[in-house]
Amino acid sequence: MASAQMAGVGGRVRKRVVVIGGGFGGIHAALGLAKLPVDITLVDRRNHHVFQPLLYQVALAVLSPGDIAQPIRSIMRDHKNVGVLMDEAVGFNTAANEVHLKTGSVLEYDYLVVATGSTHSYFGRDDWAALAPGLKTLEDATEIRRRVLLAFELAERQMLETGSHPPLNFVIIGGGPTGVELAGAISDIARLYMTKDFRHIDTKSAQVLILEGSPNLLTAYPPDLRQKALEQLNALGVTVRTGAHVTEVQPGYVMVGQERIDSVVTLWAAGVQASPLGKLLGAETDKRGAVLVDQYLNPKGMENVFICGDLAHFEQDGKQVPGVAQPAMQMGDYVAKRIGGLLAGKPSPQGFRYFDKGDMATIGRAAAVAKIEWPFKAHWSGFMAWLVWLVVHIFFLIGFRNRFAVFRQWAWTYLTFNDGVRLITGSQVLPGWETPEHEAGDRPAQAMDLGSPKTN
Amino acid sequence: MASAQMAGVGGRVRKRVVVIGGGFGGIHAALGLAKLPVDITLVDRRNHHVFQPLLYQVALAVLSPGDIAQPIRSIMRDHKNVGVLMDEAVGFNTAANEVHLKTGSVLEYDYLVVATGSTHSYFGRDDWAALAPGLKTLEDATEIRRRVLLAFELAERQMLETGSHPPLNFVIIGGGPTGVELAGAISDIARLYMTKDFRHIDTKSAQVLILEGSPNLLTAYPPDLRQKALEQLNALGVTVRTGAHVTEVQPGYVMVGQERIDSVVTLWAAGVQASPLGKLLGAETDKRGAVLVDQYLNPKGMENVFICGDLAHFEQDGKQVPGVAQPAMQMGDYVAKRIGGLLAGKPSPQGFRYFDKGDMATIGRAAAVAKIEWPFKAHWSGFMAWLVWLVVHIFFLIGFRNRFAVFRQWAWTYLTFNDGVRLITGSQVLPGWETPEHEAGDRPAQAMDLGSPKTN
Repeated sequence: MASAQMAGVGGRVRKRVVVIGGGFGGIHAALGLAKLPVDITLVDRRNHHVFQPLLYQVALAVLSPGDIAQPIRSIMRDHKNVGVLMDEAVGFNTAANEVHLKTGSVLEYDYLVVATGSTHSYFGRDDWAALAPGLKTLEDATEIRRRVLLAFELAERQMLETGSHPPLNFVIIGGGPTGVELAGAISDIARLYMTKDFRHIDTKSAQVLILEGSPNLLTAYPPDLRQKALEQLNALGVTVRTGAHVTEVQPGYVMVGQERIDSVVTLWAAGVQASPLGKLLGAETDKRGAVLVDQYLNPKGMENVFICGDLAHFEQDGKQVPGVAQPAMQMGDYVAKRIGGLLAGKPSPQGFRYFDKGDMATIGRAAAVAKIEWPFKAHWSGFMAWLVWLVVHIFFLIGFRNRFAVFRQWAWTYLTFNDGVRLITGSQVLPGWETPEHEAGDRPAQAMDLGSPKTN
Repeated sequence: MASAQMAGVGGRVRKRVVVIGGGFGGIHAALGLAKLPVDITLVDRRNHHVFQPLLYQVALAVLSPGDIAQPIRSIMRDHKNVGVLMDEAVGFNTAANEVHLKTGSVLEYDYLVVATGSTHSYFGRDDWAALAPGLKTLEDATEIRRRVLLAFELAERQMLETGSHPPLNFVIIGGGPTGVELAGAISDIARLYMTKDFRHIDTKSAQVLILEGSPNLLTAYPPDLRQKALEQLNALGVTVRTGAHVTEVQPGYVMVGQERIDSVVTLWAAGVQASPLGKLLGAETDKRGAVLVDQYLNPKGMENVFICGDLAHFEQDGKQVPGVAQPAMQMGDYVAKRIGGLLAGKPSPQGFRYFDKGDMATIGRAAAVAKIEWPFKAHWSGFMAWLVWLVVHIFFLIGFRNRFAVFRQWAWTYLTFNDGVRLITGSQVLPGWETPEHEAGDRPAQAMDLGSPKTN
């Protein structure tokens, strides 16, 4: 603990703040803290911040990974008191004010901000992860893109080879905002964007099915907007089944109780669980693993530790604040102010308060539902809600290198029904669809009839 | 062989052409053939065409994969007589006019175009492939990007942890155009783009070394341009060693004879070998595996089989035509015309002739060497050569969705020294740099001193 002693003896003047996690919470905390006379270390396993609300557009080949991600170092470049460390926190000694990193090193802090968010929860069936990827990282997004595009390619190939192909059923498990967004986007791709690309299959024959375990889609939204969302999804040809508990996920199908539902691509948009760091802190956590925090976002008994974003279980007016971008950003801002107050020796008694401006979810290329809370209260759906969604997301992309590029790309794709970024990278087989080499070799060769494209 | 019989009995009118490979040769052949009354099937293992000359800019985080790649289906969308099949040719029966695919299916053809290009050759040391990736595919490019960026991240971490880091030596094996382009680009990143991103390491301390086995850099270029290239590389701080035969590649170093050269990232830009399909055709091949072709680009004795691009060994005026984009495009165009002539029953006796407009290679952000052959002959180097390179490449990107985006991205990056697309995706460790879990756990924890950023 050489440097800790140095700090004590040599009289380190500047306090040290360690921020773990480069999502919305961590980035906002670090940017706020950067204005204070402190030395900040921002730790993340990845080198980039992802603008999560648009991740599904990468998954569905409208945007490129580079459009919605930015290196954390670039974001912090002009803040000389912020150091960025690409590493992973694996433990804490809160009594000694230490963070233990995967490499074996230790970071010492005066204040600690933990904002490591959440990941998918497969409800104890981690073997489903490979069969039904979720959407949290850029890698997840390109993997989903790969699978969806590959499903169409394989169907075309099977059509040529055998004259038929298994139905193009896409199954999305979970009917929250991510599930609804993925469903709408897959429907768009199949019905609007790819119809002219294939000669032998009809991409419009693709079926998108949302399986939601609870009685309702979009449970966080009011009933009128849920109903609108359902209508808009149906208009896109998306089938929604509520109260449908998935009991098994296998290559090529899922089971809902005794019923088998064929699926060429299964996507996971159901459970999330908090980062394990909450438990590693030794703090009290809820059943998702999120840390119960007080009005200052401190876990009980840890006054120099703050939790931001999805990892925080914060209740306001009797309701838990949702795990989305806005509360995370606001928590990050708050924590920076709070630490500023503590450093100045005059902390405000004011606790954190989530200022809810509303929620929205898109449904395909030109529809959405929006629960607007500020600057006025309204429930909007359809094209107007989609326009609001567009403006808000472009606004929030400010600071992102590619804001104009993203807008141009959107405009181009939406107006022309064109291209997108439909690249299949990585492996060329779907899980469970591999043809064993020996089988392919043993099978009698089949001639394909290439001369009869479908008429369309 | 049902469909073959059908064709015979039912009187198939339209001839079938199978094109294998969606690179420059295959795409140009298919686009030319699309104007003829034939049914074309274009087969590629991947769903996208890559604009190879700019691949190194993806590897070095200036452009995104989507900027230089386009789905083959999109390119062929308006040509109703071109079907695209994502599959892999694994064999031929030229006597029966059959292509055998990996899935076990068979394509029958009247004319066959094989344009499957080349891949890296590690001279029998395929175990080097994982340690020194080459640059042929989008996956290669993002892998190189990952390794180069990660090397800087690891150095920063080591600096914090131990107060020092191994020298940031980047070793490029091979001094052809790709090696020179990679070297210049790494030097740019280290000296110009990333200097403000790190607090503890000096990215300008990075060393780039090209190891070339032959006596000269850029052997395809005339001596005066080789010399200019060497001077321009030296001005960027790139060291070039010619006559340096690499005898071993290991994590963290390479051997040149008995000499050990430390290397945080080793890249392969040395040998290429032709696609194995040349040999599978049963055609005569050269030592690289390229198919010896006559003036009509036919392998000996195969009048309905044509070879385009890198896979063709074509000699003109006593010299082999190089394996770059221009000859491949011209061969594709020629083959389409040739097949048109054969179909019309009046083939021209005119053989293929490569019209050499010149060659160029970039060296960093604003220098290049250009051997111009048309519309006038000249040897240019420096900024003017780079401008020519820029204009030519933007011109050739015509047809690519993102021509303007690419230009804007370039302009932005070149003018502002900003951002680029510096995303590390995939694994977060470099080969050979993994910290075994137990070691990390056993190692005594080390405190990092975070309070003393470098002064710059």
